[in-house]
Amino acid sequence: MENPIYKANILIEALPYIQRLSGKTVVIKYGGNAMIDEEQIQTIMQDITLLKYVGVNPVVVHGGGPEINKTLSLMQIESRFHKGLRITDESAIDVVRMVLSGKINKDIVARLNAIGGKAIGLCGMDGALLQVEKMEPVDGVDLGFVGKITKVNCKVLEILAADEYIPVVAPIGIGPDGTAYNINADTAASEIAAAMKAEKLIFLTDIDGIYRDPKNPGSLISAITVSEINELIKEGVISGGMIPKVQGCIKGIEMGVKRTHILNGTIPHPILLEIFTDVGIGTMVTA
Amino acid sequence: MENPIYKANILIEALPYIQRLSGKTVVIKYGGNAMIDEEQIQTIMQDITLLKYVGVNPVVVHGGGPEINKTLSLMQIESRFHKGLRITDESAIDVVRMVLSGKINKDIVARLNAIGGKAIGLCGMDGALLQVEKMEPVDGVDLGFVGKITKVNCKVLEILAADEYIPVVAPIGIGPDGTAYNINADTAASEIAAAMKAEKLIFLTDIDGIYRDPKNPGSLISAITVSEINELIKEGVISGGMIPKVQGCIKGIEMGVKRTHILNGTIPHPILLEIFTDVGIGTMVTA
Amino acid sequence: MENPIYKANILIEALPYIQRLSGKTVVIKYGGNAMIDEEQIQTIMQDITLLKYVGVNPVVVHGGGPEINKTLSLMQIESRFHKGLRITDESAIDVVRMVLSGKINKDIVARLNAIGGKAIGLCGMDGALLQVEKMEPVDGVDLGFVGKITKVNCKVLEILAADEYIPVVAPIGIGPDGTAYNINADTAASEIAAAMKAEKLIFLTDIDGIYRDPKNPGSLISAITVSEINELIKEGVISGGMIPKVQGCIKGIEMGVKRTHILNGTIPHPILLEIFTDVGIGTMVTA
Amino acid sequence: MENPIYKANILIEALPYIQRLSGKTVVIKYGGNAMIDEEQIQTIMQDITLLKYVGVNPVVVHGGGPEINKTLSLMQIESRFHKGLRITDESAIDVVRMVLSGKINKDIVARLNAIGGKAIGLCGMDGALLQVEKMEPVDGVDLGFVGKITKVNCKVLEILAADEYIPVVAPIGIGPDGTAYNINADTAASEIAAAMKAEKLIFLTDIDGIYRDPKNPGSLISAITVSEINELIKEGVISGGMIPKVQGCIKGIEMGVKRTHILNGTIPHPILLEIFTDVGIGTMVTA
Amino acid sequence: MENPIYKANILIEALPYIQRLSGKTVVIKYGGNAMIDEEQIQTIMQDITLLKYVGVNPVVVHGGGPEINKTLSLMQIESRFHKGLRITDESAIDVVRMVLSGKINKDIVARLNAIGGKAIGLCGMDGALLQVEKMEPVDGVDLGFVGKITKVNCKVLEILAADEYIPVVAPIGIGPDGTAYNINADTAASEIAAAMKAEKLIFLTDIDGIYRDPKNPGSLISAITVSEINELIKEGVISGGMIPKVQGCIKGIEMGVKRTHILNGTIPHPILLEIFTDVGIGTMVTA
Amino acid sequence: MENPIYKANILIEALPYIQRLSGKTVVIKYGGNAMIDEEQIQTIMQDITLLKYVGVNPVVVHGGGPEINKTLSLMQIESRFHKGLRITDESAIDVVRMVLSGKINKDIVARLNAIGGKAIGLCGMDGALLQVEKMEPVDGVDLGFVGKITKVNCKVLEILAADEYIPVVAPIGIGPDGTAYNINADTAASEIAAAMKAEKLIFLTDIDGIYRDPKNPGSLISAITVSEINELIKEGVISGGMIPKVQGCIKGIEMGVKRTHILNGTIPHPILLEIFTDVGIGTMVTA
Repeated sequence: MENPIYKANILIEALPYIQRLSGKTVVIKYGGNAMIDEEQIQTIMQDITLLKYVGVNPVVVHGGGPEINKTLSLMQIESRFHKGLRITDESAIDVVRMVLSGKINKDIVARLNAIGGKAIGLCGMDGALLQVEKMEPVDGVDLGFVGKITKVNCKVLEILAADEYIPVVAPIGIGPDGTAYNINADTAASEIAAAMKAEKLIFLTDIDGIYRDPKNPGSLISAITVSEINELIKEGVISGGMIPKVQGCIKGIEMGVKRTHILNGTIPHPILLEIFTDVGIGTMVTA
Repeated sequence: MENPIYKANILIEALPYIQRLSGKTVVIKYGGNAMIDEEQIQTIMQDITLLKYVGVNPVVVHGGGPEINKTLSLMQIESRFHKGLRITDESAIDVVRMVLSGKINKDIVARLNAIGGKAIGLCGMDGALLQVEKMEPVDGVDLGFVGKITKVNCKVLEILAADEYIPVVAPIGIGPDGTAYNINADTAASEIAAAMKAEKLIFLTDIDGIYRDPKNPGSLISAITVSEINELIKEGVISGGMIPKVQGCIKGIEMGVKRTHILNGTIPHPILLEIFTDVGIGTMVTA
Repeated sequence: MENPIYKANILIEALPYIQRLSGKTVVIKYGGNAMIDEEQIQTIMQDITLLKYVGVNPVVVHGGGPEINKTLSLMQIESRFHKGLRITDESAIDVVRMVLSGKINKDIVARLNAIGGKAIGLCGMDGALLQVEKMEPVDGVDLGFVGKITKVNCKVLEILAADEYIPVVAPIGIGPDGTAYNINADTAASEIAAAMKAEKLIFLTDIDGIYRDPKNPGSLISAITVSEINELIKEGVISGGMIPKVQGCIKGIEMGVKRTHILNGTIPHPILLEIFTDVGIGTMVTA
Repeated sequence: MENPIYKANILIEALPYIQRLSGKTVVIKYGGNAMIDEEQIQTIMQDITLLKYVGVNPVVVHGGGPEINKTLSLMQIESRFHKGLRITDESAIDVVRMVLSGKINKDIVARLNAIGGKAIGLCGMDGALLQVEKMEPVDGVDLGFVGKITKVNCKVLEILAADEYIPVVAPIGIGPDGTAYNINADTAASEIAAAMKAEKLIFLTDIDGIYRDPKNPGSLISAITVSEINELIKEGVISGGMIPKVQGCIKGIEMGVKRTHILNGTIPHPILLEIFTDVGIGTMVTA
Repeated sequence: MENPIYKANILIEALPYIQRLSGKTVVIKYGGNAMIDEEQIQTIMQDITLLKYVGVNPVVVHGGGPEINKTLSLMQIESRFHKGLRITDESAIDVVRMVLSGKINKDIVARLNAIGGKAIGLCGMDGALLQVEKMEPVDGVDLGFVGKITKVNCKVLEILAADEYIPVVAPIGIGPDGTAYNINADTAASEIAAAMKAEKLIFLTDIDGIYRDPKNPGSLISAITVSEINELIKEGVISGGMIPKVQGCIKGIEMGVKRTHILNGTIPHPILLEIFTDVGIGTMVTA
Repeated sequence: MENPIYKANILIEALPYIQRLSGKTVVIKYGGNAMIDEEQIQTIMQDITLLKYVGVNPVVVHGGGPEINKTLSLMQIESRFHKGLRITDESAIDVVRMVLSGKINKDIVARLNAIGGKAIGLCGMDGALLQVEKMEPVDGVDLGFVGKITKVNCKVLEILAADEYIPVVAPIGIGPDGTAYNINADTAASEIAAAMKAEKLIFLTDIDGIYRDPKNPGSLISAITVSEINELIKEGVISGGMIPKVQGCIKGIEMGVKRTHILNGTIPHPILLEIFTDVGIGTMVTA
């Protein structure tokens, strides 16, 4: 009889966490390198569906790097980057849109629906959700159809979340004349979380979180403030590929989100573990 | 990392069960012999609170045998029974009311509130919830203020359950002239479950369920139909103290409740185990 | 034909009073010495029910002194007081709770229901309505389970009052750990009236009101302000048992209730007479 | 102290009647000969306003005979009748409309508003409330703009009555092309009562009710059925001017109104006396 | 195929105007000299009905000069004026009320209903919509029952407009004691527009708008501000009968209406042309 | 002044049509050959936006033939057909999804948003809107991922249409396991129209409608019944490419849509002309 009681205890361990998040919005950025292993993806879909059913309102924002490159190459369009930003000309934006809104977005929707989550896939053009202007050239390099968000109109997300639906958003913005623009998915997630006054913003990545010493797995930081992050950047502890990752968190906090999290999306059920158990994984960033 | 994943899997195991019961009413009869051990009671309070927070609407109906006898004896009133039914004269009904509505009911309310469940304690007199007439004499013995339910007016329960509250009901009925009557708690639970079109009616008792052979612990019956129960009664397999227990289940089913359960309320978290895990404890009775 | 017209005139006399109180909350403190004569109680139940039916929202808060003493003595528990405050040890609080929540509260509910008022009996533990902390010792004497209100959470009262129900509240509070505490009923009524932004707070007592000269029945004061009361206390005109009675009124006014009344609950229909006729009985206290 | 208690008793006498009619619709036909004495009119306005404030929904339908004749004569238009029905030519219908909708209707509205009743005056043309066709000639005599109701569209009355308003309706109907038609006020009241599924339909007239022997004031019939009325007509007991009066009652009953009443509108407060006291005046007609 | 496309283009031309006014209130003052030609009136009824059906909320306020004089003369009551204001004695106010509320108001209602507009005709007495006090004597001349608006209670208009109805209001006010008072229709329209926070206030008159040079038809002013109007009055360009017309516009603007218009109500479909086409007729006054 | 009046008359001509369709749903199938000319597309976007603003609820279902072929060829995937049905293997369904949901769908959304229509682009996978099973092989040829609709769950469309949104649906269905399937757009439109109990179903094609004699432009049939169509098919008058077009209409009618229309989507504003003018273009099919 030990096993059942242990099971029950784990469910009960979730109770205070469920109470605290009841009726609140949690924005989950999911994408790229965290979206590779089939079984692993399935555990994240379950996490999101469970969130909805226990009274939390999840909103998913996804990216899609590898899939875009693959399709561009199939169509013999060269992928060009400047300082890590994709140079998105007219033929590229068409492919980006199709892959993000037509493939990855609907794949997530289909996976959620298959396990009972009622997902609705949108992009930032729908209901003028993510309104953008063309991004300024970087070092004089014109990035093409890459957009900077000027306004988030999240009314349609609120209508869907207030009902039984889980909104899933592809980071494509709409320009003043209706043109599509590519948007950085981390930024889109931060902006949506801020506009919806989300309780939490979770970045599912392929790292465990922020390390005080990246070479020492034991030095993972559980909780950190924005000013402490800035300190670590100055000290050079956070550097390279880590920098854009923490910047999404900082932006979210600055925009009014209470807590942002960097979680490893390549381990099973990272959202449940962080949100509903005492385990406490990843790094939490607060003001 | 094995442990956390195991935790997450248990939460995920609950997902399909939560989906199935979302927005449904579950009536829980709790009382008497199942309400003795402090720690054990606490696990049941947690089960009920968790039910509410994951979108199910629990309604608790309680009994209170031992406590009533104790108080009667403190007040030097003799406890008299006929065929297991308490003979409830004017001084006894006063004590019954006070113990049920003023002590046990509010104790359950306080326990639920202390762990974040917003409980409201009522008796069948409130809002004329349980309307009764005096029960006919049994074998010519007048049982005094013992009532037979004539009408259930569950509107106030529906208002509370549609909001954030967990109703807790003491089995005291109201006669046509406003007089209080003692009611059998199992019957009260069945009638309330029927009136609220409950999805489930759970009897928390001090036995594990119905056994094909009461002397053989391995012969516990997981699922049984009403007609199979009647068969077992005829065969003498179900007898003695078991009979009133199964009759509550049968009455519930006959009144339209989909599933009734006999669970052992003396093991930790029996409701969660039955409802949200694959463990499957107790005996389920269906039509 | 004179008689019927006289009847109609009395109904019409009520019209402007009904219009003024339409949709407003009136808290009625009822209890102790005003709750003795059967017929008399009945007239007060009718008054409260009529209030509800003409569009006013009555909330009843009751006490229960004599009944508690009677039950304590039946259970051979000594009633002990310090400066008029009951010393409430563990066995006493149990009896207090049972008598207040299980007997007096449900008696009022039953009486109201019997004449068509849809009453719901609660105590301050339900929905954490009256949250308390242990009262400080008085003159070094520990009063036991006597509580001081720290927060009133009147949401459940508002839900019930907005529907067809008359809430009836027993003055039992809930401590931080879920323990029951005895509360002064006058204070509970004042706090609830303040939290509900009541239009009126009525104390039904066994005196006619405040007298300028207690020995002269003709010196009853119809209307008085808080500062005039304080003056009369200084002058010694209000003294002895009168002091706690006027303090409830003052507390109500200080907490934002517009008008508080001291009415004699031992004359028939005191609430109707005060509220719906030109008769004007008792003493009204305003800021 | 006798007087106040007597007052209170009269208010309490009204309680069961208020309970029974709570939320129900009562249509009151008021007009002509019952609308003469200023003070008397005032008592009826008070009755209607009180009804609204104690939770009943009054709807007033009025006539206006004498006033119409007076205005027609001022404008030197001859009043012509055939079998008691006004022959309404083009110049007459204009005057009828103006007097009914512009004067009598708004006078009632103003009187109700002056004592706190929120009245809204409409005619049957508003919102196509009373849709009519031209009445067939009677004995070959064309009655002009006299209408027969073909449809009642009481949605606007329901919207107003569900809010704080008392609708007051002038019996002018609208033809298919938008032309105004005069309608018999008794018929309009019956049709509106039927369409609104009214609980009661009250005809305020200048007689006390139906007499078994019109010469014997002691022979007033308190309650009568439709078939008994038909019997009395056959026997000649009900004859002459009584016949149209009872026909309105019969029509109301036949259309589904539960109870119709003939009351004397020339005595003070007839509606209150009938509805809220044990006095019981006039004649009640039921199926 | 040219003709159909031309038709479609005109409908499409209306789209941005419809979008801009969607859900907004437009008050239309209509009356007197603009209400003469039958066919012309019909085009205005169509304009108002179309407004309602495309999602705008029209509220009609009407006057009625000529019709009142005609009826007064039929009743041999002399029409007396002082400085253009009708001296309204007791017999006159009766006629004014009947003609405005009983005839013109219901005529407009009937016309709207006949083409599918669900109109409800009210006067300022209904629901105490237009509350007035007696106007001060002008040059020592007592104007009789002429009222000055003290309060607008537009709740009933809002209830009707939020539903499918078009309110039509006759400019009769209600004094503190329920007496009827004649009100200037332009003022009533301005006050109602202000109270309803209308987007537009349209005066349908018998002139094309404000001219810079009244003798030169080519000098019609399309748009003008309040200060420019005051300038033109000082310069004597706006004079005589023009002055009261522009004052209604100024009052509306001062009370918070965004735009007021003077349109010629004697040309077909003036409201549609101004509101839904590029034609742009009349004079628009803004702050 | 002739021109403005003409304009106004055209707007007024639309009034009865707007009244008739107010609050009703109109499903518009748009796609393929009708979606080529930029300016022409713009007129259709205006038509749809105008529909929404005058109170009709448009739902757009689109196809996308040519664009799919173009992208397949860019990705060097061969387009294969059997009897006009695309053989959709795993690589093809990916491209079909991306082009339909990611490009054409969002293009329509962007165009509508750019002119003020608040469009939301979905595919049949979102909210499990279009649930399908794999289509049976045709003549033994396996068509791959081509789906047959088994259930339409239009709740999300109803939520969006009840608010300010215009739903735009790509014809991709979801299989039981979450797999995407290509669906015939005409069929999807018919099924959605039936599920939403649409008033009208409009097929925008590249022909003017059904001709009695395809070679004679004067023989266009304005209105036809289902049985007359079947007759014309038997007679061979309707043949070849016409047959699938009329079948969509018949299916819609059989499923309960009141009226289906075949309109030429290559002429400007075909929807407005058909719905809001007397012009009457295309062929209307009724039961």
